[in-house]
Amino acid sequence: MPVKATDVKLLQDYIEKGWEFHIIDMLHDLKPVEIAELIEALDEESRGKFFVLLDVDTASEVIAELSSESREDVIDGMSDKDLARIVQDMDSDDAADLVGDLHAERAERVLAELSPEDSYDIKSLLKYPEDTAGGIMQRELISAHPNATVDEVIAQIRRLHTEINNIYMVYVVDNRRALVGTVPLVNLILSKPDSTMAQIMDLDPLTVPVAMDQEQVANLFKRYDSMVLPVVDEQGFLLGRITVDDIVDIMEEEATEDMFMLAGAEEDLLSSSVVRNASTRIPWLFVSWMGGVLASFLIREFESTISRVVGLAAFMPIILGMGGNVGTQTVALIVRGIATGASSMNFRSIVLKQMGVGVLLGAMFAVMLGLIAFFLYPDEKRISIVVALAITISMSLASFMGTFLPFLFYKLDKDPAIASGPFVTTTMDILGVTAYLGIAGLLLF
Amino acid sequence: MPVKATDVKLLQDYIEKGWEFHIIDMLHDLKPVEIAELIEALDEESRGKFFVLLDVDTASEVIAELSSESREDVIDGMSDKDLARIVQDMDSDDAADLVGDLHAERAERVLAELSPEDSYDIKSLLKYPEDTAGGIMQRELISAHPNATVDEVIAQIRRLHTEINNIYMVYVVDNRRALVGTVPLVNLILSKPDSTMAQIMDLDPLTVPVAMDQEQVANLFKRYDSMVLPVVDEQGFLLGRITVDDIVDIMEEEATEDMFMLAGAEEDLLSSSVVRNASTRIPWLFVSWMGGVLASFLIREFESTISRVVGLAAFMPIILGMGGNVGTQTVALIVRGIATGASSMNFRSIVLKQMGVGVLLGAMFAVMLGLIAFFLYPDEKRISIVVALAITISMSLASFMGTFLPFLFYKLDKDPAIASGPFVTTTMDILGVTAYLGIAGLLLF
Repeated sequence: MPVKATDVKLLQDYIEKGWEFHIIDMLHDLKPVEIAELIEALDEESRGKFFVLLDVDTASEVIAELSSESREDVIDGMSDKDLARIVQDMDSDDAADLVGDLHAERAERVLAELSPEDSYDIKSLLKYPEDTAGGIMQRELISAHPNATVDEVIAQIRRLHTEINNIYMVYVVDNRRALVGTVPLVNLILSKPDSTMAQIMDLDPLTVPVAMDQEQVANLFKRYDSMVLPVVDEQGFLLGRITVDDIVDIMEEEATEDMFMLAGAEEDLLSSSVVRNASTRIPWLFVSWMGGVLASFLIREFESTISRVVGLAAFMPIILGMGGNVGTQTVALIVRGIATGASSMNFRSIVLKQMGVGVLLGAMFAVMLGLIAFFLYPDEKRISIVVALAITISMSLASFMGTFLPFLFYKLDKDPAIASGPFVTTTMDILGVTAYLGIAGLLLF
Repeated sequence: MPVKATDVKLLQDYIEKGWEFHIIDMLHDLKPVEIAELIEALDEESRGKFFVLLDVDTASEVIAELSSESREDVIDGMSDKDLARIVQDMDSDDAADLVGDLHAERAERVLAELSPEDSYDIKSLLKYPEDTAGGIMQRELISAHPNATVDEVIAQIRRLHTEINNIYMVYVVDNRRALVGTVPLVNLILSKPDSTMAQIMDLDPLTVPVAMDQEQVANLFKRYDSMVLPVVDEQGFLLGRITVDDIVDIMEEEATEDMFMLAGAEEDLLSSSVVRNASTRIPWLFVSWMGGVLASFLIREFESTISRVVGLAAFMPIILGMGGNVGTQTVALIVRGIATGASSMNFRSIVLKQMGVGVLLGAMFAVMLGLIAFFLYPDEKRISIVVALAITISMSLASFMGTFLPFLFYKLDKDPAIASGPFVTTTMDILGVTAYLGIAGLLLF
């Protein structure tokens, strides 16, 4: 259940009155994510006042769940020392995200307050681009030497388990920290106390290269149903691990991104203001608007054609619209195909196939539309040939562009969903208008 | 890495020649999902011949990864007894999916070959709708009485661990099988051998109601960063568990579904034939086509208006297009918002806000388009007022419908993404044309 409006009201009231005991009482039994949701619902001023009431353990988990907006609100009033205490307690991947978002100076000051190890961990994570395996991995993990016994490893887990969440796997590394095997926790339980890791480890574990793009990392987890995977550098040295809960967030992020891109939206605007909503959406709309204006100039060029056969105007929306429909369908298929790991699909055969689909669909709707035009404008029968040709061209072209362009953008290392963006759809419209009225000019006069 | 074409060719060749040793040699070191991908790439006939060479352990994991098409190919030639041996070895959720897809008679025969417990597990899973928690949970789990000691539970795990994948959690149930707590595996390692479950368990665990929709289950996993969750009935009795790897698949499925729905595609067609591609996409295209035809009839009604002011035709694409753009943007925002768990958002305030966004954007583009029309058609200045009014109406209406309809469908227990379907976009086009030419008729003559 998301937070209740009544709870938020009550909490807001307690904060204004400064009734700390009531507040702490309210927090009893709430999970960190639920507290984070409460904070999101508070006004800016109350967020900071409320957050300082949390103990460090809770605060470090809650802050990882906050939106960057609310996070700024709670961090702003905090001393560097207090912030460092919270960062110290966070998982290294979340801590790196937080420190990475701070102003450079403050980040320096906070890092200086940390233990040398924690500071090193965070700094080394900040080196990696955010959307790669390195950018999402955490440094905390249980590693052991091949000669370590089950008993020794259990002792290590006992020492570290409060600092490491989700221990499912022991990573076995040699003296140079090269990963040589993995031991699932359950095998630790089932083996004799004096067995060594070398005796019970799985060899040849699946690993993630540190530079791998996060979307590919997600596909790896999906393909192998993995819960947690080790991240290694080019030499096979163990650098960190990624747990599937972060993958779940990434998948949602990527799916939302693709979907918004397809629809010409850019980010989650539901909670933003009207003006912010409008201004974020203007660029995309403006490009299409420019395209529309261009189309209207073009149509004006053909004004004499239209004035002689006014019926031509009647079919403009359907010819452009059907091209647009086929184009969007095709882009969605290809974008999703690429995103879900079919990126190595045979490019040429898919383009050819989708071209075939476009021509087939185009021809079918051409015959139907031709017949309608034929009966609607019995005095000018050639109009039916014009619309039939135009809709075939419009749908085939859309099918080709809708297949070819996402692949092209993908090969150029751009987001394939750009193919559904305003430049492309606008270009399609203009080509459609030109084809339609051009054919009309040629055939009718 | 996906399968290599050269490997597939080699394998196909070995199968045709019947070189079994070469084939088995090739399988060495391949993971089940990789073998499944090889099977997908084979021709229909070879699939069955290849599959029988796998040992039962491997076969039961591979078959769970196959598409329903390839699965049929490998199952068809198999005896009921052989199939039952594989089903027996599968996880209960995968086994239930497989048995559920068989013809009723064959399903009965296969179930009759299973042990009574396995048969019961599968039958009880088949009761639940596929897209609910019950439909995706598995029955295999480790459960223990509150009085059971760590040593006893470890002995149980030793007995069962070959049959149960991914043991992360021990579920503590009372005599009536009501769930009373959970013990993460790591706590088992860290506790004394004679501690009881009651002493070390976490109370009040997060649970999934068996009837919960799978999309909501996914949101629960996401919200609480869960790896595995127990499924309970209305009385709190433990029925099964869901692991996050299945959630990852569901999230991908749902995101693809939403995206395809938004684009008017229905399923993954990349690997289907041209004809199948075309025929699957026809219904959606046909409805928009009907809408386009209707629009062309409408425009014909206004023929005398257009023939007097031919310039009106020039702005038709931009007015309809901008409405369509705003509508798609808005639907994408709302659909994604609902899917990612913002379903309890304040409906009224979001509709009002998006209406505001539509009016604001509409007014802005109206002024710009009005100016262009003013300079483009200096002889008929009222045309600029007509296009300005029409684009405002078209964009505001699209914004309202794009917000209101997904919520409406959601409340009616339909997929919110239907709002981007052909009926809605077509209706929008027709309203747009009517508004535009209607205003023109009123203001220009």
